[in-house]
Amino acid sequence: MELSGWQRLEQQFLVLRSNKVFELTVIGIIVLSALLIGAKTYPLPAVFGRVITLLDWAITVFFLLEITIRFLGEPQKRDFFRQGWNIFDTLIVVVSLIPIEDSELALIGRLVRIFRVLRMVSIIPELRQLINALLAALPQFGYIALMMFIIFYIYGAIGSTFFAEINPALWGDISHAMLTLFRVMTFEDWTDVMYETMEVYPLSWAFYLSFIFLTAFAFLNMIIGIVVGVMEQEHQSERAALAAQSGEPTLADLQQQIASLQALVQARLPER
Amino acid sequence: MELSGWQRLEQQFLVLRSNKVFELTVIGIIVLSALLIGAKTYPLPAVFGRVITLLDWAITVFFLLEITIRFLGEPQKRDFFRQGWNIFDTLIVVVSLIPIEDSELALIGRLVRIFRVLRMVSIIPELRQLINALLAALPQFGYIALMMFIIFYIYGAIGSTFFAEINPALWGDISHAMLTLFRVMTFEDWTDVMYETMEVYPLSWAFYLSFIFLTAFAFLNMIIGIVVGVMEQEHQSERAALAAQSGEPTLADLQQQIASLQALVQARLPER
Amino acid sequence: MELSGWQRLEQQFLVLRSNKVFELTVIGIIVLSALLIGAKTYPLPAVFGRVITLLDWAITVFFLLEITIRFLGEPQKRDFFRQGWNIFDTLIVVVSLIPIEDSELALIGRLVRIFRVLRMVSIIPELRQLINALLAALPQFGYIALMMFIIFYIYGAIGSTFFAEINPALWGDISHAMLTLFRVMTFEDWTDVMYETMEVYPLSWAFYLSFIFLTAFAFLNMIIGIVVGVMEQEHQSERAALAAQSGEPTLADLQQQIASLQALVQARLPER
Amino acid sequence: MELSGWQRLEQQFLVLRSNKVFELTVIGIIVLSALLIGAKTYPLPAVFGRVITLLDWAITVFFLLEITIRFLGEPQKRDFFRQGWNIFDTLIVVVSLIPIEDSELALIGRLVRIFRVLRMVSIIPELRQLINALLAALPQFGYIALMMFIIFYIYGAIGSTFFAEINPALWGDISHAMLTLFRVMTFEDWTDVMYETMEVYPLSWAFYLSFIFLTAFAFLNMIIGIVVGVMEQEHQSERAALAAQSGEPTLADLQQQIASLQALVQARLPER
Repeated sequence: MELSGWQRLEQQFLVLRSNKVFELTVIGIIVLSALLIGAKTYPLPAVFGRVITLLDWAITVFFLLEITIRFLGEPQKRDFFRQGWNIFDTLIVVVSLIPIEDSELALIGRLVRIFRVLRMVSIIPELRQLINALLAALPQFGYIALMMFIIFYIYGAIGSTFFAEINPALWGDISHAMLTLFRVMTFEDWTDVMYETMEVYPLSWAFYLSFIFLTAFAFLNMIIGIVVGVMEQEHQSERAALAAQSGEPTLADLQQQIASLQALVQARLPER
Repeated sequence: MELSGWQRLEQQFLVLRSNKVFELTVIGIIVLSALLIGAKTYPLPAVFGRVITLLDWAITVFFLLEITIRFLGEPQKRDFFRQGWNIFDTLIVVVSLIPIEDSELALIGRLVRIFRVLRMVSIIPELRQLINALLAALPQFGYIALMMFIIFYIYGAIGSTFFAEINPALWGDISHAMLTLFRVMTFEDWTDVMYETMEVYPLSWAFYLSFIFLTAFAFLNMIIGIVVGVMEQEHQSERAALAAQSGEPTLADLQQQIASLQALVQARLPER
Repeated sequence: MELSGWQRLEQQFLVLRSNKVFELTVIGIIVLSALLIGAKTYPLPAVFGRVITLLDWAITVFFLLEITIRFLGEPQKRDFFRQGWNIFDTLIVVVSLIPIEDSELALIGRLVRIFRVLRMVSIIPELRQLINALLAALPQFGYIALMMFIIFYIYGAIGSTFFAEINPALWGDISHAMLTLFRVMTFEDWTDVMYETMEVYPLSWAFYLSFIFLTAFAFLNMIIGIVVGVMEQEHQSERAALAAQSGEPTLADLQQQIASLQALVQARLPER
Repeated sequence: MELSGWQRLEQQFLVLRSNKVFELTVIGIIVLSALLIGAKTYPLPAVFGRVITLLDWAITVFFLLEITIRFLGEPQKRDFFRQGWNIFDTLIVVVSLIPIEDSELALIGRLVRIFRVLRMVSIIPELRQLINALLAALPQFGYIALMMFIIFYIYGAIGSTFFAEINPALWGDISHAMLTLFRVMTFEDWTDVMYETMEVYPLSWAFYLSFIFLTAFAFLNMIIGIVVGVMEQEHQSERAALAAQSGEPTLADLQQQIASLQALVQARLPER
C-alpha cells in the first residue's frame, strides 16, 4: 500500500510522538519553563529579564510545535480532542500566545505561564494516573460534602445572626461566618474567636464545641468510609487476580469432580 | 370496591407524596428558604426586607401544606409519628408558625427558621441514611467517651486546684479548666498556657505532656477500634453476600458429598 | 459442714461484694466524691465549705469500709493484693486518710482525693478492660518510642548547640530544646520559633522541616503498624472463631477423608 | 588446619564482635556519649568542662578501637564496607577525630559528636530494621511527592506573583512562598496570612482554601495508598505463612488427590 506524502508525514509524527528522546526533551522544556517562572519571582538584573522573556517565547513556540506534532500524529483527528489531557494541553499553549505585556490580559497570561508546569502531569503517565484516580474518587464524596456544607451553612447562619455585632469582620454575613467556621475547624486560633463571643454569650462555647465534634465526626466517618471502600475494591480485585492467575480450582470445580467420580462408580459397580 | 370521597383524597395524597415533581418542588423551596436565611445576614435595603418577610411566610405556609399532605397521605395515621424524621419535620414547621416579631420568642423563631435547612436531610434519602449511620455509630463511643470525660475531669480538677490563682480566666473553676484542656488537646496556643504555669510550677510541663499523650492515645485507640469494627462488619456482610450470590459450595457440602460416595462404595463393593 | 462465725461473716462479705445494689452504691459514692472535688473549685460560702469537708470524711470512711469488706470477702487473702486494681484502690483509700490540713502533705492529700475519681475505672468492668487493653498495647510502642526519643535528642542537641544564644527560653539547654521541638511537632506557633532562628541562620528552615518530616513519617509508620497489627489479630481470632463455631471442616479434613476412601477402594477392589 | 597468629587474632575478634558483654559495653558507651552531649548544653563549672573534654576523647578512642575490632574480625574485608551501617559507623568515628578546637571545622566536629547518638540505631538490630523499613517505604512516595511539589510550586509561583508586594517576608520569592504554603498546610496562623492578602485581593481566600483542600486530599490519598499497600503485603505474607506453616493442603492438592482416586477406580473396575 502506497502512502501519500501527507500520510507518510503523519506516520513520522506518530513515531516521533512515542519517541523516548522527544518525550524527555518535552519534560526538560517543561522543567525549564518551571525554573523560569521561579526565577522571575526573584529580583533580577535587567539583562536576565530580557533573556527570560526571550526564553519564554522560545518555550511557547516549542510547545506550539509539540502540540501540532501530537495533533498531526493522531491517526483519528477527532479522537485527539476527546481526551481531556489533550484539550488541557492545547488550551494552555493557545492561551500562552497572549502577549504578557497587554495590561488587561497580562494577569491571565501570567497565570497560564504558571499552569504550564501542570503539563508535567499530562506528560508523565504515572502522574496522569494519580490525578485520574483522584478525580475518580471525587463522586463518593458527593453526599458527605453536601452534609458538611449543610452543617457549615446552619452554623454560619446561627453565627452571623448572633455574633455579627460582636465582630463584623468574622461574623458580618454568612459567607464570612462560614470562613470563620472553617478556621475553627482547622483549630486556628479558634479560642480567640470563642473567648470574644463568650464575653457576650457565656454559653457560646457549646456552639463551637458542638461544631467541632460534628465536623470532626463527619470527617472521620468520611475517611473511614473511603478507606473501607478502597480496601473492599482491593480485596475484590485481589480475589479475582488470585482466581485468574494461580489456576487454583474453586470448590465448585471440586464438587463437580467428586460428582463425576460418583457417577463413574455408580456406572461400573453393579447394584447388589 | 368503591372508595368514599375521603379515601379517594387520601389515595391522591399518597400518590402526590411519592411524586417526583412534588419532591423536587419541596427541595427547591427548602433551598429557597436556606438562601433567604443567608440573604438576611447581609445588610439589605428595606424593600428587600419586606419581600423576605413575605417569602418567609409563604414558605411557612407551603411547609404546613406539605406536612398536612404527607400526614393525610399516610394510610396508617399512627405510623406517621413513629418515624423520627416526620416528628422532626412537624416540629420544625409548627414552631416556625411562632411570629418572629414577638421579642421573647423571636430567638426560637429565628433558630427554627435556620433549622429548616435541616429538612434537606429529611427529604433526601441518601443524607437521611448518612445521619442514621452516624447515629448508629454513636453507642460504640459510649465507654471511650466516659473514659475521656474521666481523664478531662481529673486533669481539670488538678488544673483548677493548682493553677486557679495563676490565671482565673483559664483555670478558675473545673468547667473553665476542662474548656482550657480541650483547647490544649486541639494544640491551640497550648504552649502559652503551659509557659504561664511553668513560671510558678516549673515541672507543670509534665501535666500538659501526660495529658496530651493520654488523650491522643485514647483517641487513637478509639479510631482504630472503630475502623476495625467497621471492617469486620464489612467482611461479614461481604462473606455472607459471597455465600448467597455465587452458589459456591462450602467445605461442609464437599465433606458430605465425599461421605455419600464412600457409603456408595461400601455398599456396592463386597468386603473380602 | 459447719462454719465458724468468722467464716460465715466472710461468706456474707463475699455475697455483698458481688451484690448489684452494693456496686451501684459504690459507683454513686464515687460520683458524689467527684462532684465534691468539682464543687470545691468554685468559690463557695463558708457553710458549704464545712459541709464538703464533712462529706469528704464520710466518703473516706465509706471507702475504707468498702475496701475492708472487699478484703475480708476474699477467700484467699493473698490473692487480693495480687490484682493491680485492688492495690490501686487500697492505696487511694489509705493515702486519703492523711489529714488535708497538714500543710506539708496537703498537696498529696488533695491529689489523692482527685484520683479517687479513678476508682470509677476500677469499679466498672468495661473501663477496666479498656485500660488493660491500652496497657497491653504499650509494649509494641517500645522501639518506635526509643527511635522518636533518639530523633528528639539529636535535634534537641543540635538546637541547643546552635540556637541557645538566640532564645535561651526556648533553646537554653537540651531539655528546653526538646520541649520546644515537641511544640514544633504539634505545629503550635512553630513558624515564630523558626523565623526567629532564621534571622541568624537563614538555612535553619531545613532543621525544622526535616524534623517535621521525620517525626510525621515515624508517627505515621507507627500508626499504620498498629492498625495492621490490630487487624491481623482480628483476622486470626475471627478465623479461629469461624473454624470453632461453624464446625466447618478444614481442607486437611477433606484430604484425610479422600485418602480413607482411596484406601477403601484399594482394599476392596482387586488389582488386575 | 593450623592457623597463623593473624588468623587466630581475626577469629578472636570475630568471637568478640558477637559477644553479648561487648555489645552492651558499646551501647553503654554510646549512651554515655549521648549524656555528655546533653550535659554540654547546660552551663557547667570549668572543672566539669575539662572532664567532659577528656571523656569525649576517651569515647572517640573507644569507638576507634571498636570499629577496628569489627573490621579486623570481618572474615571478608571487602564485605565490611558493603554494609551501609558499617560505612556510617566508620565515617562517624573517623570524622570525630577532627579536633573540636579548630574553629573552622569545629562545627562539623560538634555535629558529628551529636550524630554519634545515631550509632545506637546501628547497634540495636530492632532499630536498624525500623530504619530499613522506613527507607524501603520511601520509593512508593516518589510520584505523590513529585505531585505535591508541583502543587506547591504552582501555588508558590501564583503567591509570589500576586502577594510579593503585600508581604515580602512571606511571599517575596518562590522559595519564601513555598515555605509560607507549608506553614498554611500545617494550619499555623494561616488565617493571619490570609486576612493580610484578603485586604488587597478580597477573593484570595479561594487561593488558600483550594490549596488546603488539594494538599489535604493528596495527603489523604497518599496515606490510604500506603495503608492499603502495607495491608496487601501483610495479607500475602500471611497467606504464604499459613500455607507453609500449617501443612494445610491447597484446593489444587485435593483436586489431584480426587483425580488419582478416579484413575484408580477406572483402572480396577472393568467397563461394562
